[in-house]
Amino acid sequence: MKIAILPGDGIGPEIVEQAVKVLRVLDEPFEMEFAPVGGAGYEAAGHPLPEATLKLAQEADAVLFGAVGDWKYDSLDRPLRPEQAILGLRKNLNLFANLRPAILYPELAGASTLKPEVVSGLDILIIRELTGDIYFGQPRGVRECPDGPFKGQREGFDTMRYAEGEIRRIAHVAFQAAQKRDKRLTSVDKANVLETFQFWKDIMIDVHKEYPDVALDHMYVDNAAMQLVRAPKKFDVMVTGNMFGDILSDAAAMLTGSIGMLPSASLDANNKGLYEPSHGSAPDIAGKGIANPLATILSAAMMLRYSLGKADQADRIENAVKKVLTQGLRTPDIFESGCTKIGTAEMGDAVVKAL
Amino acid sequence: MKIAILPGDGIGPEIVEQAVKVLRVLDEPFEMEFAPVGGAGYEAAGHPLPEATLKLAQEADAVLFGAVGDWKYDSLDRPLRPEQAILGLRKNLNLFANLRPAILYPELAGASTLKPEVVSGLDILIIRELTGDIYFGQPRGVRECPDGPFKGQREGFDTMRYAEGEIRRIAHVAFQAAQKRDKRLTSVDKANVLETFQFWKDIMIDVHKEYPDVALDHMYVDNAAMQLVRAPKKFDVMVTGNMFGDILSDAAAMLTGSIGMLPSASLDANNKGLYEPSHGSAPDIAGKGIANPLATILSAAMMLRYSLGKADQADRIENAVKKVLTQGLRTPDIFESGCTKIGTAEMGDAVVKAL
Ligand SMILES: CC(C)[C@H](C(=O)O)[C@@H](O)C(=O)O
Ligand SMILES: CC(C)[C@H](C(=O)O)[C@@H](O)C(=O)O
Repeated sequence: MKIAILPGDGIGPEIVEQAVKVLRVLDEPFEMEFAPVGGAGYEAAGHPLPEATLKLAQEADAVLFGAVGDWKYDSLDRPLRPEQAILGLRKNLNLFANLRPAILYPELAGASTLKPEVVSGLDILIIRELTGDIYFGQPRGVRECPDGPFKGQREGFDTMRYAEGEIRRIAHVAFQAAQKRDKRLTSVDKANVLETFQFWKDIMIDVHKEYPDVALDHMYVDNAAMQLVRAPKKFDVMVTGNMFGDILSDAAAMLTGSIGMLPSASLDANNKGLYEPSHGSAPDIAGKGIANPLATILSAAMMLRYSLGKADQADRIENAVKKVLTQGLRTPDIFESGCTKIGTAEMGDAVVKAL
Repeated sequence: MKIAILPGDGIGPEIVEQAVKVLRVLDEPFEMEFAPVGGAGYEAAGHPLPEATLKLAQEADAVLFGAVGDWKYDSLDRPLRPEQAILGLRKNLNLFANLRPAILYPELAGASTLKPEVVSGLDILIIRELTGDIYFGQPRGVRECPDGPFKGQREGFDTMRYAEGEIRRIAHVAFQAAQKRDKRLTSVDKANVLETFQFWKDIMIDVHKEYPDVALDHMYVDNAAMQLVRAPKKFDVMVTGNMFGDILSDAAAMLTGSIGMLPSASLDANNKGLYEPSHGSAPDIAGKGIANPLATILSAAMMLRYSLGKADQADRIENAVKKVLTQGLRTPDIFESGCTKIGTAEMGDAVVKAL
């Protein structure tokens, strides 16, 4: 089995290095091949997603991704900016299902800005559709405003859209994920305003017929944002579109106060996937050896479970991570007094040891 | 001066009644005229925004609005549902600037789900553009998918758009609001993905040249949702589009834990406006006499300040509200032990007395 390793920019390389260390000690016959992406791809080949990198990702059974982006690429034209790599990978690999758990480890409850009773034990799964919606809809651009009070002026515009089959396939992923958990699914829409999401809601209701054991409810996106702040533990699985999912999954991650702990998976129809930490490239702390590698290590665990058919190895890694937390080992982002502050590589080593 | 009073549905009538009581004791020559809106409009005239109601709102100098919506109208066709009234009023009255303060009164710091040190003293102003974006963009609907892998299937679609003049006018409102506060403005966009918001950002940068005394920064909407949870007090004024503003302003309101306290104003280019509480119609508690009327009373204060040129009377009301809080008077939604629990009408009376 072949894993494409794309470290990227900022803290990407140092956190991915720890996950690779962990994968190596599992003693599985994985072939790991590295390629540059994001700013690193631009430096190496003049493009954030070099052709050879895309080809490797397409051929591999799974992709382990670090993070992309750095202030120094801000002045490049949009198609050359690092984040285009992640959009390109999602679209080209058809990674339509983004799974983002927001879990608060009891040991880290103090790290949240929310009161412990509101978030401790939090365990929700946000499923974000990842290849449709206003992210890729055509037409888009800047044009002359065709009518109304601003007729003749320049206007920026984009197209939001979801086809029936696109909604059905993410609905199935969401209902099946709910079946494996507490059997409650919240579909987040804005059906009171948007045609796209009235259509989304109608299809969700239709697919629900195939999953009578799951309780489905519908929530407007503004209310969902409020309920995440008010009573996040009431949610089990949440499913939503690409744009709303971008906002809500980041808000949910931040509720835990320990976004350095949260992995993510982006899957295609055959469970091939790209795995990456939920946090960004943090160029301000890159190279200092203080970044938290656990989200990336846990992303590698998700990869073993979803794409490589090694659920037992995934369990081993997740238990090892719990163990290092119980031992009181903490990178600076999750440090509390009474614990032992360690760096990126030491954290990787601690997980290896706990295995 | 003429004020259109539109109580609406659910708790709307009972909270508006308290605000009217307060307006009456100011001893100003206001003419107040009532009209049905939302579900009440549908009951009275077969439409959520009856023609006579729209006409009254157009003729008046300001509109005081309660809330609309009730489960019993959920099965109506979308154009007849209560919330269409609010969209119709915004569009017909050209109320493009929505001002939503998120303020946490020190007395109510305990009501928040966030730790007191994270939110106490919170005072941010979110300015949401209210008549453009994907809310009103054409074309929209359900059609046959024209191309791509889902070609031929049905798809729901909408158009996001902002014309240059639309962005400029909300930018001016936002920069001027920041000038009256801490002179810091955060423009929230998704310029890394959307053409509409790259254009938005470019125009914000251009308008900034006229306000060199204001510090402008730009933040992606997903990051803004995170920063609101992580460190909301870092914001002063935030400006964003209609869709992102819907989500972020509700999240920000919920941070305070006391959404029953938060007013809002929706203004046109001449400072004519519609004023309403930030919360909804809460049909579950309607008629019980327990709803918090303070957001509506504070909305009336905003109306006096922005549309009726009576800033002194606005100050009086705001001070009276602070006084009743200091007296320990609380409706159930903001009650804490040690305080005195009172109902809707008693709260209105208490504010009148404090005046
Ligand atoms: C970098 C950006 C294009 C991306 C997105 O908006 O999807 C990021 O925010 C994410 O959530 O992975
Ligand atoms: C009721 C709905 C159409 C409305 C909106 O989305 O604008 C509401 O959520 C609001 O924020 O006033």
